[in-house]
Parts: sequence; C-alpha cells; structure tokens
Amino acid sequence: MENFDFFNPVKILFGKGKIAELGNHIPKGAKILMTYGGGSIKKNGVYDQVMEALKDYDVKEFSGIEPNPHFETLMKAVEIVRNEGIDFLLPVGGGSVLDGTKFIAAATYYEGEDEWDILAKRAKITKAVDLGAVLTLAATGSEMNSGGVVTKAATKEKLAFGNPLLFPKFSVLDPETTYSLPMRQITNGIVDAYVHVMEQYLTYPVNSPVQDRFAEGLLLTLIEEGPKAMASETPDYENRANLMWSATMALNGLISMGVKSDWATHMIGHELTAFHGIDHAVTLAIVLPGLLTKMKEQRGEKLLQYAERVWNITEGTDDERKTLAIQKTEEFFQSVGIATRLGDHNVGQDSIDTISQRFIERGYVGMLPDVAAADVAEILESRL
Amino acid sequence: MENFDFFNPVKILFGKGKIAELGNHIPKGAKILMTYGGGSIKKNGVYDQVMEALKDYDVKEFSGIEPNPHFETLMKAVEIVRNEGIDFLLPVGGGSVLDGTKFIAAATYYEGEDEWDILAKRAKITKAVDLGAVLTLAATGSEMNSGGVVTKAATKEKLAFGNPLLFPKFSVLDPETTYSLPMRQITNGIVDAYVHVMEQYLTYPVNSPVQDRFAEGLLLTLIEEGPKAMASETPDYENRANLMWSATMALNGLISMGVKSDWATHMIGHELTAFHGIDHAVTLAIVLPGLLTKMKEQRGEKLLQYAERVWNITEGTDDERKTLAIQKTEEFFQSVGIATRLGDHNVGQDSIDTISQRFIERGYVGMLPDVAAADVAEILESRL
Repeated sequence: MENFDFFNPVKILFGKGKIAELGNHIPKGAKILMTYGGGSIKKNGVYDQVMEALKDYDVKEFSGIEPNPHFETLMKAVEIVRNEGIDFLLPVGGGSVLDGTKFIAAATYYEGEDEWDILAKRAKITKAVDLGAVLTLAATGSEMNSGGVVTKAATKEKLAFGNPLLFPKFSVLDPETTYSLPMRQITNGIVDAYVHVMEQYLTYPVNSPVQDRFAEGLLLTLIEEGPKAMASETPDYENRANLMWSATMALNGLISMGVKSDWATHMIGHELTAFHGIDHAVTLAIVLPGLLTKMKEQRGEKLLQYAERVWNITEGTDDERKTLAIQKTEEFFQSVGIATRLGDHNVGQDSIDTISQRFIERGYVGMLPDVAAADVAEILESRL
Repeated sequence: MENFDFFNPVKILFGKGKIAELGNHIPKGAKILMTYGGGSIKKNGVYDQVMEALKDYDVKEFSGIEPNPHFETLMKAVEIVRNEGIDFLLPVGGGSVLDGTKFIAAATYYEGEDEWDILAKRAKITKAVDLGAVLTLAATGSEMNSGGVVTKAATKEKLAFGNPLLFPKFSVLDPETTYSLPMRQITNGIVDAYVHVMEQYLTYPVNSPVQDRFAEGLLLTLIEEGPKAMASETPDYENRANLMWSATMALNGLISMGVKSDWATHMIGHELTAFHGIDHAVTLAIVLPGLLTKMKEQRGEKLLQYAERVWNITEGTDDERKTLAIQKTEEFFQSVGIATRLGDHNVGQDSIDTISQRFIERGYVGMLPDVAAADVAEILESRL
C-alpha cells in the first residue's frame, strides 16, 4: 500500500430524530444561511424540523439550488452571505445542495477577480465560512468529505473543487428524510455510491486488503439493498439507513487511502451531464461498463478479484469471468431502473465527437494514465 | 441499525518515512514532553528519527512507561508536565505508552483531589494537554481513538477512561517502526486487534451490513496476514502495513457505530492481567472461546454469520457450525503462538474464585446484559 494522510473531522449524527439535535452543534448566536433546492423539504416536513431545531437562531434562507448546482446561482448566495454577515451555512438537501454550499463557503472569502477560478484554475482556498449539513438524499458522499462539483451554465463546464476547510462541522443523516423521494432519486443514489466505490477499487492491486474488503463490503451492501428499496412499497427504515451509510462511507476518503484511484468514469460522465443534462448517476452507469471493457487487460487482476468476491464468479477463463463481471455490473444498474446506453438518452456520434475533442484538448481523463484522452471516443462509442 | 454519533478527528500519517513530517503537525514553539517505554526506540532508530524531526523544538523526555501503564508511574510525568509548562505530549510507542500519555494529558488539568478518580469514578475530564503520537506497535488502536486503560499497581485495578479531548491531533503510523519488535509482540497485536473486532461484531444482529462487512474484512485480513508475519524471516513491509492499518481500523469507533458492542472479554481479561501479569492479548485469547461457548445460544445468529463469512463453514447443524467457528478462532490464536488455556499460565481455581467475586461485587461484566457477573466463573472454568 502507498503512503497516505487521512483526516476526516466531520461529526456524523445518524438516525431518526437527529435533526432535533442541530442546536447542539451550531455556535450560539451564529447567523445562519440555510440553503436548499426546489422546496421539497417544505412538503416532507424536513424544513419544519430544521426550523424548530433552530428557533433560537437568526436563520436566513436561500432556495433554488438546482441539481448540478450552477455557479451563477451560487454566486447570488455568496452576495447574501457577504452582505448579511452570515457566519454559518446549513445546506439541507442532497449532494447538489451540499456541494453548492461548499462552493458558497469557499467563494465568500475568495479575493481573486473571478470566483470561478476556484474551479477552473484550482485557485487556493485560504478561508471558508463554517458549515454543517442536513442530508436528505443518500448518494454523493458530500456530507462527509471536503469536495464538491459545480457547473457553469454559461459554458457547460462541470468541475470539481475541494479543501479541508470545506469539511462540514457536522452532518445530520436521518434516513427518514429520504422517505418522500421519488424512486428515481433513490436508485440514482445507489448507482452513484456504487460507482464511487468502483473508482477507488477497480484499478490496480497495491496489497491493500483492508481497503479492498471495505470497498467490496460496500458494493455487496448496495447490491443487496438496492433491490430491497425498489421492491418495498413503503420505505423501510433499515433499508434507507443502510443505503445512506453506504453512500457516506463510499466517498469519505477511507477506502481510497493508500490505493490508486481513477475517476475517469466521473470525468466522462460529467461531460454527458454538462451537454445533455443526463442525471449524474445515469451517466456513470452508461460509462463504467465501457471503461471497464476497454481496461479489461490493464485492470485484469482487480477485475478478477471483483468478479469472485462481489459477484461470486469462479468458473470460466479469465476473459469470461471479467466479461461476466462487467455484464453483472451493468445488469445491476439496469435492475434498479437505469437505462445504460447512450441511445436510450438520444446521445449520438456527434456528441461523442464533441466530448472526445474536449478531452483531447484537456490532455487527460482520470487520475491514472491508463485511460487516455484518445480512448474516450472508443469508450463512448461502445455505449451507443 | 441504532442511532449513533461518529466523530474521529485524528489525522493519520501513514507509511515509511512519515516520522520526518512530525514538525508539520506540532505547533511551532510548543514545549514537548516525549514519552516512551523501556528504551527500545533508542535501539531501533525511532528515537533518533523523532529527535531529528523535532530539532527545532524544546523537547523533554519521560521514559519508563511500562506495559499496562501504572497510575503511579504516570503521575510522575504529570508532575513534570505541570512544573515544566509542557503544552504538547508526544507518546512514542505502543498502546501502553499511548494510553498512559492520554492519562497524563487528562490528569494534568484534573482539579479533584485524586487523579485516580478519572478511572475509578469516571470523573469528568474538562481540559487536556494536546497530544500527537508515533506508533511503534500495531495492536490497541489507541492511536486513533480517545480512550485508554491504566492500572493501579497498589490495588491491582485495571480500568478504562476516555474523552473526546484525548483524541491525538495526529498519529504517525510507520510500519517500519515495528521491524525490530519480538514476534511475540507482533502476534499479541494481531490477537488484540482480532478480539477488538469481535467485541463489536460478535453480539446481536441489528441489520448493519456495512459495519458487519467491515468487521469481517478486518478479521479476514488478520487471519491472512498473521501467518505471513510468523512465516517471514525478515519483516515484510506490506505485511506490517496491513497489520498496522487493520489494528487501527479495529478500534477507531467506525465498526461499532449503530451496533451492539460487548467488551466482556476485555473486562475479564483485564483481571487476568491485573492479578497475574499475563499479556493483555493472551488474556483475550484465553477468555474469548469460553465466552462465545457460553453465549452460543444467545449470540447464535451472529456466530453462524461469522462461521460462514469468516471461516467459510457452511456444512453441519447450527450447533456444529458454531462450535467449529469457536474452535477455528482458538486455533487461529494458537497458530500465532498464543497459549490459550489458563493452565498454560498457571492460573487455577483459586484465582477464578477471586476474579469471579470481583465481578459479583461490581455487578456487571461487559456492556450487554447477556454475560452476567455470575457467568464469569463458568467461563473461566471452561478455560482451565
């Protein structure tokens, strides 16, 4: 295993009723900006729970943070934070609201000319507004990490940023907040978490049995709990709790320590979202089988381990076991209702050419050299 | 799964050469007390590495912290910290040095009459000296948690304490620091970590698949890596690294979140150490098979899961599978050179009577009601 530094100071408050404890974790007298999305939290009671817990605080609101949160939207919140002297941010929502609010936290004190440089130029973040989060959708892991992804609507660019200053001070994870979600968002979350694990696991062996088994444990849990979520007519607490904890553990840094991470699937997927508005998780489900097929030789050792330990595939030649594992992966995505082909989403060759060109100009795809910019076209063409 | 709060802000600096980075993590100008044990760090080069990394600091030393660190010894260090204006503690050693130094950190600012009350009366800790650690022995997990165990030599009492103020700010985990250890300490560490996991895992099902699979992943890793450690004539870096990371993950709080933990094996084991000086890990290896046998009915569901997933036992009646899993557990301890019977350590019925009586007076054993004080005698008698 490679050398690593691990640090994750996020306090997790997990379980039913935990929103009521919010006041124990925000400094007395803090001036809070509560951020959220389209207002579903007003229908499902979460908004009221938060407001009740914060009745002794001065709470302002900023709503309308969209999925794949827009830089343009978030900058409006930055103005409010600056003008109103906000000193604590409280995103209430899923990954988009959390990621967007991390950007607000970083952009508020940014002293350069253009806050977009935090993403485009990876400009250094030296100060950020404190934040805590109330999670209402298990998917991105943003609740227990210090990164985010923001989209510039004007240029269709979707880019990542991060800094240890952006770890939430706490995150409330109450599985009951997910009860009112449409099943599409639950299953997107399952696939998102699954691919997060795969980005950190399905690369190259570095003799890291703990990290590997943790990753496999998360994949097995998602494979078990996904169909249960689909099958139950009314939400089951334990099922939602296990999905939520899996998604958090999938991207809190732990399973990536000392191993080789990839993120090429995400990078390609981000372009599909930026150009076509396809749900983030769906883009991952489209890209991953193509990427793994392209990497069948290079990542063969890990693919065979995955085949055996996650899918219990022990018969056949190496190539047959790898092929079957990739097929099982795609079938799992399909089993939770995801359409995994570009054709299903009306994306054709012209779009592949545009996206491929963008990577060729950028000169890289993920964090490993095995997936080259020149490979993107072939990967996407295999997914038509 | 049950509601839980998780918080672990320890920064882990993992890998070879990491001691050299110490200075990046201790406040400039800090007045450091470096604590250690019997001086083995002076022979294996770790002392020199630490001193080189801290050459710009004012470093005082306190050596002689013994295994199962004594309250009486530690209070001498508390005097030094108070008198010398020490503001940072740096334990360099294994779990005993780390635990002992956490006690020093807590006792320094204790305002009550008797610092032993921190353990005996669980007196509240409201302030502690900052500490960071250099780990040289993988076993107790103290490097990434906020607890410790201290022994009062005068009364042969071995008790636990803990407080979030006692989380190390950082812990350096360089597997190479373990190269010079006698094999007995390596294998003790393996068994200690194994039983830490069992205390949190082998209890009752609460529908916590992530925690279960993480626990099983640690057990499987220890089962794989233990014999490798025994077999290799010269220490193997990857082997030592995997053992070290397993031991840390075994007791940093993660796998116990939302599940039912026990710790009865530890409580009984502590008495064997307190009265007979038997190595901590050895006491656990003695007690655990007896405790699991006694709990075969109550903990049957988890025992069967353990049998299948950890030991691949799928044939036979329920009772046969449980019995075989317990037997495999004991054989694993024996395979790394641990003598697992009381008779091997000259402990007889008279001592069992004394220990049993102590539990009956105390009125409890572990954190679960299934192991009663009245059961201790039977558990120990089964291990004669």
